[in-house]
Amino acid sequence: MRNRLTQLFDTKFPIALGGMAGITDAALAAAVSEAGGLGTIAGAKESADTLKEEIDRLRRLTERPFAVNIPLVVPQARELISAVIQKNVPIVITAAGNPSLYIDTLKAAGIKVLHVVPSVDSARRAEDAGVDAVIAEGFESGGFASPYEIGTLALIPQVVDSIKIPVIAAGGIADARGYAACLILGAEGASVGTAFLATRECSRIGSAWRSQLLNGNDLATRIIAREVMPVRMLINASAERLEKLVAEGASRRDVLNYIFTTDTMDSQDGAFPCGQAVGLIREIRTVKEVIENIAHGSKVLLSRMHAEGFF
Amino acid sequence: MRNRLTQLFDTKFPIALGGMAGITDAALAAAVSEAGGLGTIAGAKESADTLKEEIDRLRRLTERPFAVNIPLVVPQARELISAVIQKNVPIVITAAGNPSLYIDTLKAAGIKVLHVVPSVDSARRAEDAGVDAVIAEGFESGGFASPYEIGTLALIPQVVDSIKIPVIAAGGIADARGYAACLILGAEGASVGTAFLATRECSRIGSAWRSQLLNGNDLATRIIAREVMPVRMLINASAERLEKLVAEGASRRDVLNYIFTTDTMDSQDGAFPCGQAVGLIREIRTVKEVIENIAHGSKVLLSRMHAEGFF
Repeated sequence: MRNRLTQLFDTKFPIALGGMAGITDAALAAAVSEAGGLGTIAGAKESADTLKEEIDRLRRLTERPFAVNIPLVVPQARELISAVIQKNVPIVITAAGNPSLYIDTLKAAGIKVLHVVPSVDSARRAEDAGVDAVIAEGFESGGFASPYEIGTLALIPQVVDSIKIPVIAAGGIADARGYAACLILGAEGASVGTAFLATRECSRIGSAWRSQLLNGNDLATRIIAREVMPVRMLINASAERLEKLVAEGASRRDVLNYIFTTDTMDSQDGAFPCGQAVGLIREIRTVKEVIENIAHGSKVLLSRMHAEGFF
Repeated sequence: MRNRLTQLFDTKFPIALGGMAGITDAALAAAVSEAGGLGTIAGAKESADTLKEEIDRLRRLTERPFAVNIPLVVPQARELISAVIQKNVPIVITAAGNPSLYIDTLKAAGIKVLHVVPSVDSARRAEDAGVDAVIAEGFESGGFASPYEIGTLALIPQVVDSIKIPVIAAGGIADARGYAACLILGAEGASVGTAFLATRECSRIGSAWRSQLLNGNDLATRIIAREVMPVRMLINASAERLEKLVAEGASRRDVLNYIFTTDTMDSQDGAFPCGQAVGLIREIRTVKEVIENIAHGSKVLLSRMHAEGFF
């Protein structure tokens, strides 16, 4: 399959690793790129120096294209932008902020820019700002969330109808069915987070998070801190403590600190961001298995439905 | 297309009209059944006598199969169940309650039973209770909502993987793309509400509701009364008044009364339930146009993607 996104990404599949702060490191990103997707290093928690080291580490692991995710609201955003320009990163994914702040600088450096949007209006503004594609992220998605809360199935076609640049679907996509459904809705690719958490190459999560992923069902996640700084995470003792802190008046910064300082490796009930597709995760697989299941599985699915005259 | 649902419904298409209290009357239901779908009369607001009159009226308009929707939490639920048995209704859609309460009575009367579910666990319990199929309703859906808030894209495959009876997808489906996407996710049919609100045959809504439907975008609806009795409706002065009432301590019954006593015809800013797919609604069409757009459009869409080797 070749489309505008495989051309933009210069990858075999239009499937991106969703940037997850503290989780999607050089090793996981490189594994996704090596498997034919677009690996993403998350910049949110990193200093510019650490990010540059991760970029170097990724380049020792793969020669393939990759992206760096930078939420524009983090205090070190400007330094991270300088770092990706200095390191000549091929693709930058901006999120949670105004993409027009840095778009000229990034484009002048020859960097392709994707922006994460939660609504039609945000998608239009990102297109006007000059980004190359948008990642339209629905309510199902794990991690920091938009207050707009639009379900992926409703969001994608409305965004597709409103802009001309390619749309990457995100939120609730963990297998071939979700991916094929989003392509049917008009997206040209997908950004996948939760399914890549449950891989052998994801070394930044410990046994508790892994076990909660494998045992989680459709009711395992919830939006926490909805009125302050909404984040979808696994419901556990840590999520309940955070809700209590919010009820007692925790600020956006408090919530951010709470999430970012969780011990993802050893904590038994840390703040574990996760999407609603967690109930589709049955086992720990390799990154390659996840990507091939999605890419080839969707082809098989479509052919079978076509052959059966299902529609 | 023939599948388990067209057999169960005995219709041309596995597409049901979502029951909308006070809106889906005999005329709208008959139009859907005449167009090859499954028309649904909503029982929620009706007395048993009014419901029986509506059933008679529908039968004067069509000889085709239809359904009656009964939320099991309404005070007159028992009388409505007696009415549908007395009138030998072919299909009953139960919602918002425990289907096992009435399943034996309904099945003994030869009535097929569908139950609306918001989660995998509810779907499993409905299957165990003996219903013929479930309507898995996602977060995008208009009207009274589940506190579970699972997006349709994440909900459908998880429900499909967990039960053996057919799954009808609901929530966010307003055109061929949403319908085809849900079939790809494993549903065997769809329940559509908002798209049928915007039809010539929908005579129970006035110019204000119609105009808000045609002008609404992806941000036009919100879950109101989330902590008391969640309902997705168009954001207008009425929704804001209801939020204020809830903040002041309105009960479930207060919210229900507020919604059910709105003047749907003449009010300029009534309590207008509506789903997140409202931004896909561009014009008032006939019921036949809506159904054929969905059914035939999805076929065209799938064939085109197959021909283009898109996957």
